Amino acid sequence: MSPKNSDINVTNKFIRNAEKDFLYHFGLDRQSNDFEKAFGDVKVVCTGGCYKRIENYALMFAKEVGLQTPKNLCQSYRYVLYKTGPILWISHGIGSASLSIMLIETIKLLYYAKATGVSYIRIGTSGGIGVDGGTVIVSSGGVNGEFKQEHIQYVLGKKVTNPAVLDKELQLELVETAKKLKIPHDIGLTLCADDFYEGQGRLDGAFCNYTEEDKFNFLENIHKIGVRNIEMESTCFASLLNRANIKAAIICVALVNRLNGDQVDVEKDTYHDFEMRPYKIVCEYLKNKFTFQ
Amino acid sequence: MSPKNSDINVTNKFIRNAEKDFLYHFGLDRQSNDFEKAFGDVKVVCTGGCYKRIENYALMFAKEVGLQTPKNLCQSYRYVLYKTGPILWISHGIGSASLSIMLIETIKLLYYAKATGVSYIRIGTSGGIGVDGGTVIVSSGGVNGEFKQEHIQYVLGKKVTNPAVLDKELQLELVETAKKLKIPHDIGLTLCADDFYEGQGRLDGAFCNYTEEDKFNFLENIHKIGVRNIEMESTCFASLLNRANIKAAIICVALVNRLNGDQVDVEKDTYHDFEMRPYKIVCEYLKNKFTFQ
Repeated sequence: MSPKNSDINVTNKFIRNAEKDFLYHFGLDRQSNDFEKAFGDVKVVCTGGCYKRIENYALMFAKEVGLQTPKNLCQSYRYVLYKTGPILWISHGIGSASLSIMLIETIKLLYYAKATGVSYIRIGTSGGIGVDGGTVIVSSGGVNGEFKQEHIQYVLGKKVTNPAVLDKELQLELVETAKKLKIPHDIGLTLCADDFYEGQGRLDGAFCNYTEEDKFNFLENIHKIGVRNIEMESTCFASLLNRANIKAAIICVALVNRLNGDQVDVEKDTYHDFEMRPYKIVCEYLKNKFTFQ
Repeated sequence: MSPKNSDINVTNKFIRNAEKDFLYHFGLDRQSNDFEKAFGDVKVVCTGGCYKRIENYALMFAKEVGLQTPKNLCQSYRYVLYKTGPILWISHGIGSASLSIMLIETIKLLYYAKATGVSYIRIGTSGGIGVDGGTVIVSSGGVNGEFKQEHIQYVLGKKVTNPAVLDKELQLELVETAKKLKIPHDIGLTLCADDFYEGQGRLDGAFCNYTEEDKFNFLENIHKIGVRNIEMESTCFASLLNRANIKAAIICVALVNRLNGDQVDVEKDTYHDFEMRPYKIVCEYLKNKFTFQ
């Protein structure tokens, strides 16, 4: 029996009273789909940037738990969306803007579906700060370009900030699972950059108005305040899901230690091994938490 | 004969003196590819968000000018990259962060390739402000969330801004072509939002802390300063290419008039017709400017 309402916090009264809604970037229409039947049982959404990686994770997971090979349910070319029992697998593209659209449309989808007790896990790649390549970082919070644990938005011409808070319990459960699987891991803050080159203090972009010394001072300063990795989505992810009352966790492998270099030129086999590590932890966590048939 | 050097302005001295460079998000390595041979003749790069749309444009264009069907040259799943004679077609995903990575790696690629006289055209979709759905907007400049013609970045913990300037000549050439083809069009500023819902004053997101009146005041205010459409990339696109000394233009169709509504629920055939309009203009422009064999 599905509950009467979702516990997802959709604060928009226009949506709460509307019957029509076309989730444009998923190509899914509320009126011609039974969202409650299709998605009412969802308990965890797993997401990551690259659609091919998310597709691989979803297909591997289905095989691992003995479910049929799932089909891509997204009706646009913007994202991919797979369902394996109570678990959704959705890609988010690169950066907060691309992520934010996918998050808002998932929040609305699961709210309409009357889903309850949903968690959201971002499984990604990142640059490590003072940790070896291959280390899996479970984020304790997201930090923006101003070094604040906030997500910055511009709404109707005004700067608005919301706290970038992650769920402590989910974080600890993922850390325990990493320990159990003996996968090298660390806990720390995650810096959310808006670009890959200047925004992350790299020396290998097209532009670079700072010295090598400036770069290392920056990396050492963020290390001191507890940052262990840099990616491009954490504050947006934490903030929007916190507002929606959905538990959120971020688990990213560090591809390189940025204190040693900027280029991501990891060997193909090593890259694949690294890319699989956060997935293995999440897969083990999900298998212990839910039953699949 | 290729010139000795590119006229692309790569200001990063670390890159100018380096021999090794792996363009990670394209999966292209400078050492194992002859960039000059493969890309030295490039004169125009056409880009757009959705990889499937860019793929379609590239294949249609090859057919139109009598070239062989091109293959995707991108060696990662992050973007697609097609070449038809001196024209490149590259997807950029959604938003400035995703776009910025693709731009930086293209700037470096074409700099290494010793390409000269390169222009860059973004062909996209957008929300119209006071223009009918189907109107093609040729941008006169990009405006950020603070209503300034600047791109905002955070570099080493500091806020940095650069002017979001587009090329006047290229803009007028595209407008002349639209006139010739009798495609409804307008010229105006383009607001660059960081998200699709709150950042664009929509009433149909998961969150909405403003009233319908606030929304219309916002849309009317930006209309008054000359904004004719909203998308999610313009200031980043204009600013990075301006810094690189590459001529840049943005040509986007308005899918809806936001003064009439928020939902993008255009009929499939109409959507396809709208989506083809900026492509038709660019295609005509390119056919008149270059020879293909």
